[in-house]
Order: sequence, then structure tokens, then C-alpha cells
Amino acid sequence: MLLFGNKLFTAGCLTLACCSYVSTAAALEALPAQPPIPKDNPMTPAKIELGKQLFLDPRLSVDGTVSCNSCHNVMSSGTDNRAVSVGVSGQKGGRSAPTVWNAAFLTAQFWDGRAATLEDQAKGPILNPIEMGMPNPELAVQRLKAIPGYQKQFADVFGGADPITYDNIAKAIATYERTLITPDSAFDRYMHGDKKALSETAQRGMKLVEEVGCTSCHNGPVFAGPSTLAMGQGFFQKFPTFAGSKYDATYGLMLDEGRATTTKKIEDKNMWRVPTWRNVALTAPYFHNGSVKTLDEAVRVMAKTQLNKELKDEQVKDIVAFLDSLTGKFPAQTLPMLPDLVNDSLLVGEASTAKK
Amino acid sequence: MLLFGNKLFTAGCLTLACCSYVSTAAALEALPAQPPIPKDNPMTPAKIELGKQLFLDPRLSVDGTVSCNSCHNVMSSGTDNRAVSVGVSGQKGGRSAPTVWNAAFLTAQFWDGRAATLEDQAKGPILNPIEMGMPNPELAVQRLKAIPGYQKQFADVFGGADPITYDNIAKAIATYERTLITPDSAFDRYMHGDKKALSETAQRGMKLVEEVGCTSCHNGPVFAGPSTLAMGQGFFQKFPTFAGSKYDATYGLMLDEGRATTTKKIEDKNMWRVPTWRNVALTAPYFHNGSVKTLDEAVRVMAKTQLNKELKDEQVKDIVAFLDSLTGKFPAQTLPMLPDLVNDSLLVGEASTAKK
Repeated sequence: MLLFGNKLFTAGCLTLACCSYVSTAAALEALPAQPPIPKDNPMTPAKIELGKQLFLDPRLSVDGTVSCNSCHNVMSSGTDNRAVSVGVSGQKGGRSAPTVWNAAFLTAQFWDGRAATLEDQAKGPILNPIEMGMPNPELAVQRLKAIPGYQKQFADVFGGADPITYDNIAKAIATYERTLITPDSAFDRYMHGDKKALSETAQRGMKLVEEVGCTSCHNGPVFAGPSTLAMGQGFFQKFPTFAGSKYDATYGLMLDEGRATTTKKIEDKNMWRVPTWRNVALTAPYFHNGSVKTLDEAVRVMAKTQLNKELKDEQVKDIVAFLDSLTGKFPAQTLPMLPDLVNDSLLVGEASTAKK
Repeated sequence: MLLFGNKLFTAGCLTLACCSYVSTAAALEALPAQPPIPKDNPMTPAKIELGKQLFLDPRLSVDGTVSCNSCHNVMSSGTDNRAVSVGVSGQKGGRSAPTVWNAAFLTAQFWDGRAATLEDQAKGPILNPIEMGMPNPELAVQRLKAIPGYQKQFADVFGGADPITYDNIAKAIATYERTLITPDSAFDRYMHGDKKALSETAQRGMKLVEEVGCTSCHNGPVFAGPSTLAMGQGFFQKFPTFAGSKYDATYGLMLDEGRATTTKKIEDKNMWRVPTWRNVALTAPYFHNGSVKTLDEAVRVMAKTQLNKELKDEQVKDIVAFLDSLTGKFPAQTLPMLPDLVNDSLLVGEASTAKK
């Protein structure tokens, strides 16, 4: 209870831009073996497999070219490593794709926290006109209903008279995403007692992130806030907290109003869900607009904009070494085979625009 | 030798639009266990794994959004099941993506046969401005050279002072593609002695494709022409051979001049590499322009345009049942992890075009 209160206090403190250093010695946590599993969407092997197929299936986009995996690549960092993502018809999104790895531990989804759960999140991009571009949920459902292999799998997994529903599509995808966990980073091994797992540089960095104050926000199992918050509550911070540095203009930090774009509340202007540090070494470019190319620079920007501190090069190096120690082990996965429509086409009416 | 002569004769005959039926009793062949392997690019497990990573890596496209797999999906039919494919910036290609499954058996690559080998083929789409859009081979090489995991793998696989070359990228991809073989279809089991593997309908269809004359061209291990041809020679046919049917206009069959677009020879006008029948049930829509939605209709169109025959519905049904028996077993594959750049971005200068 004390821990819970302490963390809430920390969050509240920073929300008010209070910059006094609060001890977060208890904030560093190894990755739990499992993320929270909602009672109404239990994990089963068949549901995980179905979710993996859906996650990798471009037929969930209007023209069959974009899958969840296009922007959240599970063969890599769980992102597309682009500043902003590209959806159907070459359209570019407004924000940088957050990693899907360990997203199951976050207490709100999307950069602005507008989805409470992975299930809610999964329903968004399919219908977003500049992402997967489906005009309505019914068309997504209709697509899958045409495919015998999906008919069978949804019936087996969900049962009932009408197993292929938009809700069940989201449930299967979210279930798969709850398997996308990367344990056993050097940091985790260190926390479990292997004191040689971290280099001296990384150990100095670990001390620094606490002393400098980074872990006031970047705490909890994925360094994105305490897991004791209710799912959906989210953990947000103003970025920049200390406006006025050169970085605001250099990286366009205030051009996007963040959480206020979804809540329409003035107090949410430039508020963002605190992103995870896990695998952050692999997810460049950085921040909601993907404007910062390297992790070194991202660390400098954060120290200045969030804590009003200028770090020395040596400090940046140590902190980056610690952040690098948070790259976990990616689970071995089989390549799914997507169920096919036989002797017929799902996607019609597409004509070439190439010159003959 | 007789077999070889007989097949060459068959091909030559049809090239001249000779429509007399030539016996192709020897033309039906089970899928060999292995495709031809070029002497200068032997298969090794490490090269296959590297090739798989490259095949699935969108960083081989200029903006990091399109991989070989985007259009030749190895989680599915080896195509994108679209009329024409979508490359970088939402650009649409001029021809329908042929399947990569069993492409290793073809004696020429691309619809117009302009590449002699899989190695040659792999070099094309990366540099095609409407496909993967790399401005030159050097940028592709430079991208991979920046990634430590690729540096190590190319050195291990190819050795030498400068292992990451455009030629070696193509060699690795081609090596992976030679593993994309789908044996053990119902037809193959039938050919290996299991006479119950084919339904009566499919067996009637098998007789029909010979009697009607389809196998004059669709013969050999993948029903795309004899494997006795030299690699690079290719096996071509005029489409439509019998011009003037309603299908020419309905499906725009003559709008693309086919092989003549690459050879610039008048005699190659509307000549096309004969496509494989293997897994044809899964690769709708059909033909070089993806204009035909169903396999039934594709069979009708081919009988009319290539053999000047009108098939009865029952015959179409039988032939489609036979074609359906050519869907093979897809090998289990692991999902590769693509080597990452650490703490830095490969793709820069991309700004959002979304409204704020």
C-alpha cells in the first residue's frame, strides 16, 4: 500500500511540474512473467494462433496491403522504425508507431491513451482512414467471414452462432499481443541476482536515471509507470514539462497537443502516455513524432524538457548503456499461414495506374 | 532424350499457334524434392536464414515500408492476392505479382521472362521506382552495411573483404526462395501411387486438361513448361493465341504487350511466360493483369483464347477440381528476427503529412 501510494504521489507530483527529486528506489522492477490478463478474454493456444494470423493479415486493410505488423513489426522492434507510419494509399500518419512488445503491461494504449485496453486499441487502426482504411467494422467482419479457415477458427475459439465479430477480432489480436513479452534482458538478469549482467557503465546509468529523476515517471515493470494503476487509467506526463528550451522548436515538440486531441480538455494539452523503456535501443526514431534520430539525443532532450537538467556527455553515455541493458529476449515464433480463399478473390476492382 | 524432344516440339508447335492436339502423356510430373541449384550459389542453412531475413525486411525499400514479402507473401499464396501490387508511396504496379512458391522451378522469371534466374529477379523490384524504390544498388548495400547483425551474417555466409554486395543480397534471397517448395499435393500423392488421393472429379479433370490441350503448355514439374529447358531460356506462349474473343476486351488482355516490352521484338508481342499451376487455387485474381476474379472464369478464358474451345460447365468444374488438387503442403517456417540498428535510425527525413 505504501508502495502504491508512493508511486501515485510521484506521478501526481510530476503532473504538477514539481521538480523536486522523489526517491523511486522501489521503482526498478524486473519484467513479470505475464502481463495482466482480462477475465473476459482468457488466453488459449488457439486464440493466440488466430490472433497472430489476424495481426499479420493485410486483408484487414481496405486494399489488402497493410497489416498490424506493417507498423508494429514483430520480426523487429515492434515498430516500423520510421518517424511516422505509412498506411493505405501511401498516406502518412501523424504519430510514430509505439512498440507492440510489452504493450500488454501499459495501463492505457496509443500515445494519447485513448484506448483503455489492447482490445480497444486493436479496433482503432483497422478503421482509421489513413492507417488500414476499412470504411466500417462490418466490412472487416465480412472479409473474414468469406474465408473458410477463419470461419472454422473463430467457431473453435469463440463458439456461438456468430463467432466472427469485430469484438472477437480485437480479442484474438489482443490475446496474441499478450504473448509479445521480452523477458531476460541484462537488467532483468541483474535484478534476479546476476550482478555481472550489467557493465559498470550500465550500473552507473542505472544509478543516474534514479538520481537525475527519470524514474519518477519511467518506473514499473516496463518503465512506463506503475502497474498498480487500474487498466485504462493510464500514466501521463506533460512533454515538454519545462517548455522553452531549444528543443521545442528543433523537434516540433508542441505541434501536437497530445492527450488533449482526444479528451478536448485544456489540462491535457501536450500530455502524453509515458512510453516504455524496454527495447528502447531498437525503436528509433524517438518521441511521438519520431523527430529525434538517436537515443543519445533523446536522453538529452528528456533531461532538459522534463527535468530541466543539462547532462554531461559521460552521463548520457552511462544512461544509454543502462537503456541498452533493457533489450530483452524475443520469443521464438512460427511463421503463421493465413487461411486462404480458394478459387476466388477477396479484393476486386483494383486497376493498375502504371504506364503501359 | 525423346522426352526432351517431344516437349520442345510441343512448345514450338504452340508458339506458332498450331492448335492440333499433341499428346503430352508424359507431361504430368510430381514435384521433384529439390529445384535446380546453380553451382555458383550453393544452399547452406546460414544463407537460407539470411535470405529469409532479407526477403522479409522492409528496409530494402527506400522508405522502409515494402519488403519482397509485401507482394509475395510467404504466409499465404506467395502473392498479395491483388490485381496489381502496391509499392512505395501507394504506387500501383502494372502486373499481378506471380507466386514465389516453386518459382525456383521456372526457367525464366517475371511475367515477361526478363530475368534468367532467381538471383537476377531479386535485383529488380528493389530498384523499381514503383515497387521498392531504391534509387541505386549502392543505397541498398549501404543500408545493410549499417546494421551489425547483417555485417556478421554476410561475412559468415560469403566471406571476403566486402561481403555485403548487391550480388550477394540477391544470392541470399534466391537461396531462401529455393526452399519455398510445396510438395505433397493430392496430385503428387496420386502420382506417387495413392490412387485415392484424387477425387473422381479431379481425375476427370486430369484427363480433360490433357484432352483439351492445356498440358501442351502447362506441363513439367510445376505445369509451367519442361524443366529440361536451360535456365534462362524460359517457356513462353502468346496470350491470347486466338485473338478476337469477347475476353480480349472484357479483361483487357492485349493492353500489355508482354515479352515485347522487354525484348522490343515484334514477334514477342503478347507473349508471356507460362505461369505455374501449382497452388493456383490460392492465387486469385488471375493473369498478368489480375483481371479475372475466379479460377472457373480463368479456365474458360484460357480454353477459348489459347485453344479456341468453349468448355461446358461440367468440364470447367472437373478441371478446377484437378487444379485444386495441385495445392501443396507449405513448409513450416520460423518467424525471423531482423537484425536491428541500435540507438539510431536508418530512415530519416520523413515528415508526417497528417492534419494536426
